[in-house]
Formats: sequence, structure tokens, C-alpha cells
Amino acid sequence: MSSTLRSKLVKDSETTMTELVMPNDTNHLGDLMGGNLMKWMDIACAMCASRHTNSAVVTASVDNISFKSSIKLGEICILNAVVTRVFNSSLEVYVTVYAENAVTAQTRKANEAYFTFVSVDSVKHRPVKALPVIPQTPEEVERFEGAQRRRELRLILAGRLKPSQANDLKSLFQ
Amino acid sequence: MSSTLRSKLVKDSETTMTELVMPNDTNHLGDLMGGNLMKWMDIACAMCASRHTNSAVVTASVDNISFKSSIKLGEICILNAVVTRVFNSSLEVYVTVYAENAVTAQTRKANEAYFTFVSVDSVKHRPVKALPVIPQTPEEVERFEGAQRRRELRLILAGRLKPSQANDLKSLFQ
Amino acid sequence: MSSTLRSKLVKDSETTMTELVMPNDTNHLGDLMGGNLMKWMDIACAMCASRHTNSAVVTASVDNISFKSSIKLGEICILNAVVTRVFNSSLEVYVTVYAENAVTAQTRKANEAYFTFVSVDSVKHRPVKALPVIPQTPEEVERFEGAQRRRELRLILAGRLKPSQANDLKSLFQ
Amino acid sequence: MSSTLRSKLVKDSETTMTELVMPNDTNHLGDLMGGNLMKWMDIACAMCASRHTNSAVVTASVDNISFKSSIKLGEICILNAVVTRVFNSSLEVYVTVYAENAVTAQTRKANEAYFTFVSVDSVKHRPVKALPVIPQTPEEVERFEGAQRRRELRLILAGRLKPSQANDLKSLFQ
Amino acid sequence: MSSTLRSKLVKDSETTMTELVMPNDTNHLGDLMGGNLMKWMDIACAMCASRHTNSAVVTASVDNISFKSSIKLGEICILNAVVTRVFNSSLEVYVTVYAENAVTAQTRKANEAYFTFVSVDSVKHRPVKALPVIPQTPEEVERFEGAQRRRELRLILAGRLKPSQANDLKSLFQ
Amino acid sequence: MSSTLRSKLVKDSETTMTELVMPNDTNHLGDLMGGNLMKWMDIACAMCASRHTNSAVVTASVDNISFKSSIKLGEICILNAVVTRVFNSSLEVYVTVYAENAVTAQTRKANEAYFTFVSVDSVKHRPVKALPVIPQTPEEVERFEGAQRRRELRLILAGRLKPSQANDLKSLFQ
Repeated sequence: MSSTLRSKLVKDSETTMTELVMPNDTNHLGDLMGGNLMKWMDIACAMCASRHTNSAVVTASVDNISFKSSIKLGEICILNAVVTRVFNSSLEVYVTVYAENAVTAQTRKANEAYFTFVSVDSVKHRPVKALPVIPQTPEEVERFEGAQRRRELRLILAGRLKPSQANDLKSLFQ
Repeated sequence: MSSTLRSKLVKDSETTMTELVMPNDTNHLGDLMGGNLMKWMDIACAMCASRHTNSAVVTASVDNISFKSSIKLGEICILNAVVTRVFNSSLEVYVTVYAENAVTAQTRKANEAYFTFVSVDSVKHRPVKALPVIPQTPEEVERFEGAQRRRELRLILAGRLKPSQANDLKSLFQ
Repeated sequence: MSSTLRSKLVKDSETTMTELVMPNDTNHLGDLMGGNLMKWMDIACAMCASRHTNSAVVTASVDNISFKSSIKLGEICILNAVVTRVFNSSLEVYVTVYAENAVTAQTRKANEAYFTFVSVDSVKHRPVKALPVIPQTPEEVERFEGAQRRRELRLILAGRLKPSQANDLKSLFQ
Repeated sequence: MSSTLRSKLVKDSETTMTELVMPNDTNHLGDLMGGNLMKWMDIACAMCASRHTNSAVVTASVDNISFKSSIKLGEICILNAVVTRVFNSSLEVYVTVYAENAVTAQTRKANEAYFTFVSVDSVKHRPVKALPVIPQTPEEVERFEGAQRRRELRLILAGRLKPSQANDLKSLFQ
Repeated sequence: MSSTLRSKLVKDSETTMTELVMPNDTNHLGDLMGGNLMKWMDIACAMCASRHTNSAVVTASVDNISFKSSIKLGEICILNAVVTRVFNSSLEVYVTVYAENAVTAQTRKANEAYFTFVSVDSVKHRPVKALPVIPQTPEEVERFEGAQRRRELRLILAGRLKPSQANDLKSLFQ
Repeated sequence: MSSTLRSKLVKDSETTMTELVMPNDTNHLGDLMGGNLMKWMDIACAMCASRHTNSAVVTASVDNISFKSSIKLGEICILNAVVTRVFNSSLEVYVTVYAENAVTAQTRKANEAYFTFVSVDSVKHRPVKALPVIPQTPEEVERFEGAQRRRELRLILAGRLKPSQANDLKSLFQ
């Protein structure tokens, strides 16, 4: 891509990762281990972030993840990652996880999460500014707008923002 | 332990896991991959939860994790997991991650997170009630009390509680 | 999907698998090991075949694979698998491999291959008949037609067909 | 070995690799995964090629592989690799795979394949000329002679030779 | 730690490693593979040795290990490593292995062994002198004293000492 | 093999395992990790023992292992395992490890060890009697005879024999 780009679209870096749940991925109950799924989510989001920034990226944070449905040995796990918003050198990526049973042809949503990455130069690993992302579909716009609120929540949870200063969040509790 | 136990202490299930960062655990920048660290955190917390409940456990959720400090190839990663509070069949576990450079003898806090597990029977994997935990030290009491607020936040984030009903949380934003 | 289906389209089972080349995947020259790439190709094709047949599948054969371009540590490997044709209980899957350097945003074709799978029942692992696939685009039709010729070549190479009986192939050498 | 060598024998680089099929190597049906077997075949052949050339080698291609017999968890997998012929900087390696059940003391041939490698210098990974191999037994001579025909087939399949120019192959179809 | 240290205590480098036995760690009988346990023991001891010497370490030897009790899939394996004695640049580490069944809350001793490491500089990997360790408890003193006898046995087994010169050992056989 | 066999030869179960040292097998100094080598030694010996007994086997003990020479990334590791002697249901296996640099064509002995296994039935994993082994070459006879002395040493180290009762060993110290 040309270095004169001023922004990118969400679909330019959308990443689909498909994994078959093998014995090595399961816990002793025969289900995909939560920790392995988090590892796959991190990799899918890192590839997506790296495609958007055209740089190396490091994981900065992951928001609350809720594991609704166990995924079984032999099922197919589909991870879809999209950039939602860019804040200087950091960017938020949204990942959705689906579990598919190829024999019954049933697919169910298993999971979703927001990861944050920092774009870094590949020599000294220092933060570098990333191009903005332009949301287009209604869902992309909704996630773009929610990103500000989630960012306030992260800063509060990290002790770097007082709840009383989180204007977007405050409005939720009134 | 006797089946007549009515509760347990935090230290009864405290779990320390120590890992050496090997080439296999790193990303192509030579640092411990965020996804691998999350996997270790999940395993350390699962062992701690299982020791408290004396049952199999499945990961229900993980709260916001912030990656402050990268951990290098050859460093030692220490994970300390303790139960903070039990809610019927689910229990919250707090994990702290330290990175130690054995050559400089420097240790730094790298990470912390709250995981939630569900205690399940080993045949049908259905939820079973877990024993309460009795906090003793001031830190244990503080984390025990904060558990209610974090639980409200998780329920809101999962869309199962309206922000206006989250009494513990609401007080923070006023 | 309904059990009254009589055939499926190629796109119904198309599978995209995206992998980040990690230290664990490379040889001592720092490139993705040929053997690891073959393993990923096998998994991508198996998921595609299983989605088409809605059954377990076992790898029956893989045709000649040529490794044109080495794939480096930290690059993204994209595998795209599609069903080309069904012969009773066996089906041919075509996989294309692309290597992407996220930093330069350059993508190159690295590889391609034809795998053959047998659809089996999940109890006794005996062959079961698979639904036909209906090719639609010109490329799909071309690969559908070529499948007969590749099948003759496989049977000759396996010693199960005399070259003189391979009508499709013979015409090539005249 | 002395640098004044003009050629080597097949047995000088013969390589036997023996693997125990562990849970980590199987698919969800409990059999050795086709992709894992291909990985082992690639490693066995690479060690054999490297022993012949006394250099680093990279996988150039693998010919048609047919999976006749599934290999079970707990069985022993024996891979035997020999150089068949050298063409300048590239060399063909023949690998035979046996599956052994140690309890019944039964061994069966499971597989065979031809891999092609390129000998490269270890700094810039550029092709370097390899010593010829001298076939001695009737089987070695037969595989040496067949190597020309298999090479024509590979060049045709790679689109680098017209079928009408493949003299060795053409004779088969008449 | 200050570079003016003249010695260290055993507890300064004591290392506890806790592992959950996962499918990947077992043999085809469903038990933790002996070879995997040895690998964990080596890692636990290496971290302990490295903490004592504040340097990189390489494994020099491991004494007789006896596997008394098999460890099952899903059990927790606890490894406790302590330095027993330092001999110039080499040091002996004692590791005890416990197997815990979290469901029954039963813990049993599974194993123990003595590993020897050499402290090396991180550039050229040459031996460097290590600080002495000061034993304090009766058990620490007993292991400190036994270290001389075990060292003689190692030197005899390595063919570097004649049995008749092993004064500590000789007394045992009289 | 016929069930009327009364004994077997050493070469009937001799096992050669050849491994290429990959990034995944090394420590952070770039050498094959001691723990990984022990794992390979355990697997090579287990396959050898299982071939002799035609049964499942479990590792009972490993004698002193001394690591003389580090093995580098990209080198070839050759493990050769032979049965030395059978004692009822247990049998001793001797493994020699060689490290080969394919580029320089230099091979050096890196290691050796004695492992002991117990032959077990595959249902209840209870010990079953194993056929004797008949040593033939002078080396095989020497290792057969030394097995009695090593066994006494193991029993002393395990606290199951008093040194004064170890007749073979006692003679060494006089």
C-alpha cells in the first residue's frame, strides 16, 4: 500500500482464522481450554492490528471475556477480528469467536472480546502513530463510538482515570 | 480434607506456578507472547479454583487484563493465584504475575487479573455449589469486598444487569 | 443443513485459515519448515472437506507440492481451501497458500496443492457417500474438469491403473 | 569427510527416524494425523539430504503421497530415507514409512514418497552444487533411473516443461 | 542483590513450580510420561540454580531417578527445588515432586532427584565461580553433607575417580 | 513373533531414533535443553523395551546421566537403545546419544544412560513377566554382567538394599 494513505477501511485488515480443535488444545474434560482460546484470540487480533498499522504490534490489554459455550474436541473454531478505532499509537480490535460442528452443520457464537494493541517500530519497539480507521457499516460505526467508553473504563480499571472524569461512562449510570 | 468442612481459608488453595520463558513461548520480537501469558494465567487460576472446590472447574470469564511490562526470553515468570470470593457455584480468582531476571535478581510486577470459574461435577459437567472462602488479611478482605463490584461490572458487560441496578458500581461515578 | 440436500456449492465449504509464523514453526534457518506448512495445508483441507461432507474425513492422498518461496518468521500465512469434485466417498480439495508481510503489505502466492479425503462415519470410520459439488465460476469448472485427469494420474502413481487406460492423461502426451 | 570426495554412496546418508505416536500427534479420531506424518517425512528426508550434501537444505517439492493405512496412538512409526539421485544443486530423497505395533510385533508398510531438496550455503541460502550419488544395489539403480522420469513429471506439473518434451514419460503412455 | 554478598541461604533460591497434567503431557496409557516429568524437573532445578548463581546455568548431570507412583491426566504436579551445596562453579540441586489430586485433596510424594548444574557466563558460556550456600535447617545440613558422597559416586560413574579413592562412599560398604 | 519364543536377542529390539534439533527444543542459550534430551532418551528406551517385551512399558528408573557436550540448534541427535538384561518383569535398557553436525560431517558421543522399565499388561497396567535377553557380542555380555551391579546400586539408592548386602558393588570398593 502507498505511504501516502491517510486512513484505511475496516475491511482492509479484517482477519479470519479457522482452527480445528485437536487433542493438544483440550483440557482433561475434552473441551478447548479457555487459555488456548485466549491465545488464539490474541494471535488473530495481533494479525489484524498488524495489517492495519503495517508494523509490529504488542498486546496492551484485553477487556472482559465471558466464556458462554464450551467448544469440543473436533469442532471448528472461527475467529473474526476487525479494527474498531485508533487512538494515536494504540488501536482497539474486536474479535468474535464461533464454534462450528461440521457434522451437524451447526454454528454458534462462543465468545467475543476487545483487545488493544500498540503499534511499535521493529528495531527499538517504541510506539509509532497509526493511521485512523474509517467505519462504514452501522455496526462499524457503533463499535467506533463505543470505543471511547471502553477506553475510559480501561483507564479507570488501570487506575489512570478517576471515575468522575469518565464522561461517557457516567451517563450510563444515571 | 473432611467432607464436613464448612468453609476454607484463602491460603488453603493458594497456587504458585513458576515458568521459564523458552523460545517456544515467545513471539517474533523475542518477548513472551501475550496469548501465552493468558494461557498460563488461566492454568494457574484453574488449579487454584480446583483446589478450593475439590472439583473440576471451567473458565467462565476473565476481567480486563493490562500488559504493562514485556517479559523477555530467558526470564522467569511467577504466577500467584488466590481465591477472593465464592458466589454459589462460581468463584473469583485473583492472579498476580511477576517477571524475574535471575541474572540481575530484579523482580517486577508484570500483570494481574481476575478470573471467574464454575465448579462442575466431573461426569455431566453441571454446576455444583462451592464452599465459601473466609478472607483474613486486610488485602484478602479488600479483594473479598471488591468482588461484589467486579461481579456487577461483569453482569453489565454481559448484558445481564442494567447499569442503574448496579448499586456498588453506581456509587463510584457520583 | 437439511438432510434433503442433493448437492452443494463450492463456496458452502470454502475455508480460510490464517496463521502467524512463530518461532516454533521455523527451521534453524528461520523459515517456516516445509513439513509444518504441509501440516497446516492438511488441516485447512480437512476442515473444508468435513464442511462439505458433514462427516469426519481422513486424508487419502496429496498430489505433488512445489515450494516456490520461503516464508519467514513473523509473516502471515493464508491458506484457502475449496472442494473441486466428489467421487463417491472421496473428494478432492484444492488449497492455495499465500505469504503476507504485514509491514510491507506485500502478499505473494507461496504454494498450492490438491488433497484427497475420504468421508467416513464417525463410529467405524468406514467410507460413506458424499454429496456432489456444483462448480459455478469458470475457475471452479476448470478445476472440476481437471479433477478427472489428476485422479487418473494418482491411480497410475498408486499402481492401480495402467497408463494406457488413462484416457484423459494420454491425450496430453500426444 | 575429506573435501576431495567425488561422490558418495546411498548408505552414507541413509537415515532412520523412529517415532512413538503420542496423544499430541493424533487427530480427534485417535489416528496419527496425515499432516503430522508429512512433517516427520520432511524432517527425515531433510536430515538425509543434509548428510549427503554436508550443507543446509530447503524442501523444494514433494511428490504424490498416498495414505494407505492409518497409524494408531501408541504405535511406532519408522521412517527410512535414502538419496536416489542428484541433479546439480537439487537431490531427490525416497522415504518409506512403516507402522509397527510393538505388542503384536506386526509391522506394515504405511507410506512412501519422493521429496526434492536444494542444497544451500548457510549464509545467503543460495543453491550450491551437490556431489553425485552412486547407486549400487538393484533397487538403488532402479530408483536412480526412475528419478529422471519423476523429474519430468514434476516439471510438467509445475508448468515448466511441455508434456510433448517429456521423453521418458511419453514412452509410458504408448 | 548486592555484589558484595559472600553467600546465600537455601530459601533465597527455593523454587516451586506447579503444573497441571494436560493431554499433551501424557503417554498413550493416560499417565504423565516419565520423559516429560524429567523435563519439568530439569526446568525447575535450572531456575533454582540460576536464582542462586545469578547467571545462566547448564545441566551437567542428573542422579538416579526412581518413578514410584504414576501421575494421572488432570492431576497437579508440584516440583520443589532447593540448592544443597556449591562446588566452585558447579552446584547440586535437590528436587522433590508431589502429585496432587485436587478432587480428593490427596497429595503423595511421586519422585525426587539430584541435578547438578554449572554456572556459566552468558557470552561465551564458560564456567564461573558460584557463591556458597549456607544450610540452616537439619534437613538442609543433612543434604549438604550427603552432597560430598553423591559427588564421589558421580565421579566414579563418570570414570573420573577410582572407587578406592572415594572415602565417603567406602565407609558405607564396610 | 511366535508365542513359543523362550528368549530374544539384543538386536531384535534395537532402536535408532534420529532427531533434528529445532528451535522448539532449545533453551535460551540456543542449545538442546537437557530436559528435552532426557525426554527423547525416555522415548527411545521405551520403544526398545516395548519391542522386547511385546507389551506396554512404564519407566521405573533412570540411572545417573552426565551431559558432556552441548548439542546445538540444527545438529542431528542420534539415540541408540538396546536391552541389556531382564529381571522378571523389569528390564534395563542402555541408550547412547550421538550429536552429528551434518555440515562438517563430525559425529561425537554426547551422552549415555541406563533406563529401567516394567512390562505391564495394557488393561490394568500390572507387571507381567518378560522374556530373557541373550547377549552375544562382548559388549552385550559386559553390559549384561554389569546390570547386576547397577541393580544393586539402584536398590541401595532407593533404600531397598543395605550397602553391606550388595556383594557385586562391595568388591569394587576393596
